[in-house]
Amino acid sequence: MSGDDAPAQQQNAEETKQENEPSDEPKSESKPESPPVSSTEAAATPAATEKVPEEEQFTYRSLVLSGYGGYDKVKLQVKKGKPALKAGEVMVRVKACGLNFADLLARQGLYDRLPSPPVTPGMECSGEIEAVGEEVTDRKVGDKVLVLNRCGLWQEVAVVPATHTFLIPEGMTFEEAAALPVNYITAYMMLFDFGNLRPNQSILIHSAAGGVGIAATQLCQTVKDVTVFGTASASKHETISQGGVTHCIDYRTRDYVEEVRKISPKGLDIVLDPLGGSDTHKAYNLLKPMGKLITYGAANMLAGQKKNLLAVAKTWYHQFSIHTLSLIQNNKSVCGFHLGYLDGEVEVILQAMTTILDLYRQGKIKPRIDSTYHLEQVGDAMRRMQERNNIGKVILITEPMPEEEKKEEPKKEEKKEDKKKEDKKKDDKKKEDSKKEDKKEEKKKEEPKKEEKNEEKSEVKKEEKKEEPKKEEK
Amino acid sequence: MSGDDAPAQQQNAEETKQENEPSDEPKSESKPESPPVSSTEAAATPAATEKVPEEEQFTYRSLVLSGYGGYDKVKLQVKKGKPALKAGEVMVRVKACGLNFADLLARQGLYDRLPSPPVTPGMECSGEIEAVGEEVTDRKVGDKVLVLNRCGLWQEVAVVPATHTFLIPEGMTFEEAAALPVNYITAYMMLFDFGNLRPNQSILIHSAAGGVGIAATQLCQTVKDVTVFGTASASKHETISQGGVTHCIDYRTRDYVEEVRKISPKGLDIVLDPLGGSDTHKAYNLLKPMGKLITYGAANMLAGQKKNLLAVAKTWYHQFSIHTLSLIQNNKSVCGFHLGYLDGEVEVILQAMTTILDLYRQGKIKPRIDSTYHLEQVGDAMRRMQERNNIGKVILITEPMPEEEKKEEPKKEEKKEDKKKEDKKKDDKKKEDSKKEDKKEEKKKEEPKKEEKNEEKSEVKKEEKKEEPKKEEK
Repeated sequence: MSGDDAPAQQQNAEETKQENEPSDEPKSESKPESPPVSSTEAAATPAATEKVPEEEQFTYRSLVLSGYGGYDKVKLQVKKGKPALKAGEVMVRVKACGLNFADLLARQGLYDRLPSPPVTPGMECSGEIEAVGEEVTDRKVGDKVLVLNRCGLWQEVAVVPATHTFLIPEGMTFEEAAALPVNYITAYMMLFDFGNLRPNQSILIHSAAGGVGIAATQLCQTVKDVTVFGTASASKHETISQGGVTHCIDYRTRDYVEEVRKISPKGLDIVLDPLGGSDTHKAYNLLKPMGKLITYGAANMLAGQKKNLLAVAKTWYHQFSIHTLSLIQNNKSVCGFHLGYLDGEVEVILQAMTTILDLYRQGKIKPRIDSTYHLEQVGDAMRRMQERNNIGKVILITEPMPEEEKKEEPKKEEKKEDKKKEDKKKDDKKKEDSKKEDKKEEKKKEEPKKEEKNEEKSEVKKEEKKEEPKKEEK
Repeated sequence: MSGDDAPAQQQNAEETKQENEPSDEPKSESKPESPPVSSTEAAATPAATEKVPEEEQFTYRSLVLSGYGGYDKVKLQVKKGKPALKAGEVMVRVKACGLNFADLLARQGLYDRLPSPPVTPGMECSGEIEAVGEEVTDRKVGDKVLVLNRCGLWQEVAVVPATHTFLIPEGMTFEEAAALPVNYITAYMMLFDFGNLRPNQSILIHSAAGGVGIAATQLCQTVKDVTVFGTASASKHETISQGGVTHCIDYRTRDYVEEVRKISPKGLDIVLDPLGGSDTHKAYNLLKPMGKLITYGAANMLAGQKKNLLAVAKTWYHQFSIHTLSLIQNNKSVCGFHLGYLDGEVEVILQAMTTILDLYRQGKIKPRIDSTYHLEQVGDAMRRMQERNNIGKVILITEPMPEEEKKEEPKKEEKKEDKKKEDKKKDDKKKEDSKKEDKKEEKKKEEPKKEEKNEEKSEVKKEEKKEEPKKEEK
């Protein structure tokens, strides 16, 4: 996972064309029309494509972050020209991509592992190998793989080092495969490397309904008698409880510190902290002796679609700083984790991924797909995640969105929303609004693929009646 | 290990008598003549002991810290009156006690887990159970035990909760037993709880010839292919190398960071840091991604016999403080450990101790006794440790020092020192001086006990020719 070669797949795109409609926003910081990477041949390329060589007829759709800002800064473009492969690289025909919190931070310019725009985001995807470069011996055309890369995977065709690909086990869907690497490696490394999780221990998992939260909860089930405290809004409790959370805490209405203390007065063995800021202090205080605080994000920095300087400043200001003498006197551990900064640790990643895929084969873990969006809908996908409406993983699929779906959606969505309102009244107004957006997506793609359809259905049904999600959970 | 009941064994001492000669120092902060704990009966006790009841004829020798300061602040006193046992407590006839770095800090007033003087120091000892209190079911008179307590063990008779005692395995000497708990539990918790040490990893152990250093090195041998970097002065390299240190670094003449980087350019998986101050920064920078820094002391604060305010301030000023965002971006972990603050974690201690005793039974670990001193020689014992002349554990034995030894010592010592000087010239002047002190002790007790004699001999020989210490090491 050497980051330097990450944007390699764009180097041979000879021309890009923006597919989605231009945004209404001022384009001060964005350069949407320019190609993602300048190419010496670009100027010479003919505008019409009548008699171009085969290599140049090769086009693929690609999401490109055109500049830092709101959801509309990620634009769908068409790239032209077949990417060349260097030794050790493979070309992957991408089927599904995972969304991660780092992608949201990156869009706001808060994630320094993403190269400057214009750039294609995306740290994980799944697909089929379409070509292999020289010196690649353990991958062949047609292999189904999942991919972990520094960026550049939100597009139909991606070129990556073969070492960044992992063979997909029998029976795993492309959506599951795209949902796996970032969340499960993150959860795995935190729990079993830094956390050293052992039987009878207790753990607090924030955002237990998020991608990492669900992965961590499932991995906790592989250890005997682990007590899992999980925070999530009330509407998600049933799902996360079935997934293995022992004590669900609605952080919107309760003080989670108090709730934990009521049940575990002595504190916890591990706290996973994706929030940062003052929540890290609370996490530290919740640890019992020999406890481990593992912080892996600064989600508190994200407030709204665009960079919120106040939220950033506040999170930074409250960011936890610890003196070793305090650690000594309390017998505590503070760890930081971010997969994006684990570049070059090929061995570490390989080992974790191998174990995770084994656990999948044994039926001990199974990614939970929250929702699936077409590349065209990336803005909605990001919104769903940022507004914390997902339970599990938000996935992008590369399959183009059928025209008829685009027209149908508003009507269906309204109907659906009304029905939902009757069923569930506990959600607050803000959440309702954002859900509205999400339901839109779910209805849009009623038929797409078999695997995905199942996930979708379960998602929809779960909102209406709460009996059967068990199957998908485990 | 509840600390609150630690000084219990002194509560029934009805009278104390100071045995060693008064110090030359002003006694502004010490109260050597007053009893360690005020007793309502104390005033009524007759000065002469002709016709006192049996309980009051009971006397035992006890080391008492009379006030903060130099080596002479720890004085040998005679306590009178049999300590009473509360429910759950046992009375131990102490045979051997371990010296720890915390004891040295405590003497200078730098360790807040020791109650204010006058108080008997000592966190670990071994001996035989002489009486059991009510409700004690798993210990009986005559049991050979090792004891871990907050303090109060440097005396002939100690009263402790039965849960603070552990049965000594067959074949283990009292000296070994007294050397075991603090160093091995500390090393064990750091390596296998916080450190999560696994095969093929690399570790830096500072003061690899110290008690914790030797314990940690031995415990590293129980994991496959662990590369151990160990710092120690050159004269100790042969010994620690035979004990399992892969790369010995003389921190007095070399920059240990450079030495480690030469061999492991990517850094280390674990650094054990007993030093504090700027060395903690170096340790942090030496970690590779997913690396763990475990700091467990502030030895740099100790400079000289008495509290050195400059050293304290400097260590405090340079003390490491870490921001979680740095941890995240580097994928690192910073942990603090100190057994003295692990009060009340009976389960944790019991589990570690059980594993450690099992490893001893399997022959995988064996405490290395550096030297053995009588209670009368506690000052020399502390000096040996503080001046870093020990290789392994410094032990106090309660057996009184024979009169003739006291008189013989000066002559023998001189002769010995001369001989040593011829053999070894690499030690610097300062070290020579302090060694002089130590040799004195070794000669003083030529015959005491069988086990101890072996250890002593090996120590002496090792200084002269470097062939045979192998046996004692493993």
